[in-house]
Amino acid sequence: MDPGLTRCGVGVVDGVAGRPLRMVAVGVVRTPAERDTPERLVLIERGIEEWLDEHRPEAVAVERVFSQHNVRTVMGTAQASAVAMLCAARRGLPVALHTPSEVKAAVTGSGRADKDQVGAMVTRLLRLSAPPKPADAADALALAICHIWRGAAQQRLARATAAAPGARRTPPVRVAKGTIEP
Amino acid sequence: MDPGLTRCGVGVVDGVAGRPLRMVAVGVVRTPAERDTPERLVLIERGIEEWLDEHRPEAVAVERVFSQHNVRTVMGTAQASAVAMLCAARRGLPVALHTPSEVKAAVTGSGRADKDQVGAMVTRLLRLSAPPKPADAADALALAICHIWRGAAQQRLARATAAAPGARRTPPVRVAKGTIEP
Repeated sequence: MDPGLTRCGVGVVDGVAGRPLRMVAVGVVRTPAERDTPERLVLIERGIEEWLDEHRPEAVAVERVFSQHNVRTVMGTAQASAVAMLCAARRGLPVALHTPSEVKAAVTGSGRADKDQVGAMVTRLLRLSAPPKPADAADALALAICHIWRGAAQQRLARATAAAPGARRTPPVRVAKGTIEP
Repeated sequence: MDPGLTRCGVGVVDGVAGRPLRMVAVGVVRTPAERDTPERLVLIERGIEEWLDEHRPEAVAVERVFSQHNVRTVMGTAQASAVAMLCAARRGLPVALHTPSEVKAAVTGSGRADKDQVGAMVTRLLRLSAPPKPADAADALALAICHIWRGAAQQRLARATAAAPGARRTPPVRVAKGTIEP
């Protein structure tokens, strides 16, 4: 009913584009539907802070929320994603937003792929024994993969632009974390 | 364009229902439109924290965001209001949400009053020399007034229900703060 507040998928992926990626961790931050919104936002903040403390990512990717979604779920998703962006930016981490279609296109080749297809590709790309459950968790990993790949493309562009000899190579995105609306 | 993130009206009002109210402070937390959303959320959090530190309110009222609003502005408003709710709830402060029509009805008698009418009534009720500017600031004060009055009604109800002799009187709402979408 209010999935952004109910479940935030979180996935941590280590790697650089062009080499096999490794899943570090995956999970879901949940908040009870019977609590009121301010309390749930505090619980989400606490959950995300624990993930950031434990995994110390170099960058954070958050799903870009669109208002053309179901109007009931979009408010909760917007609120939950605001907390995710806040937690990351407060630590000085770069925050990237990717749309659901960008994520699907990155991992399956099609921006209109369904959940099963995304789950199957995440399983293959991270060499897992089974698709992560729930779908929010798989979506968070897909977002992390998308971020590493898109980031690499952007870095190639930046390097080509600022191609001073001996220019310092930008460090690879090591870990990305995603907040996902199911 | 994105008013929730651009301006958050903040108003602090001291008083109890049935007696003249007093404006303690009013202002606006602003963030530059050219910064990206995660950074702007960090600036909003910092601004709200300063207000809470300085005024130590007993309760916080935040405008309830509706998704039927303009879809462009509603996302920013939802994100900014999530930060306001988070800041208050993290301190253990009670957070109340009031809709724009509830606020208008409380201060003007009509849920469809316009900005000027709300500004005029806020000026009168708080005995100010002129309507607070910008409209977001006046709206935040209207929200605080609404909260004190609605809170009093709810407390009367609670007292009538739990009417044990010598039951401790709930303390008056001393201060309310509002995040307002212009």
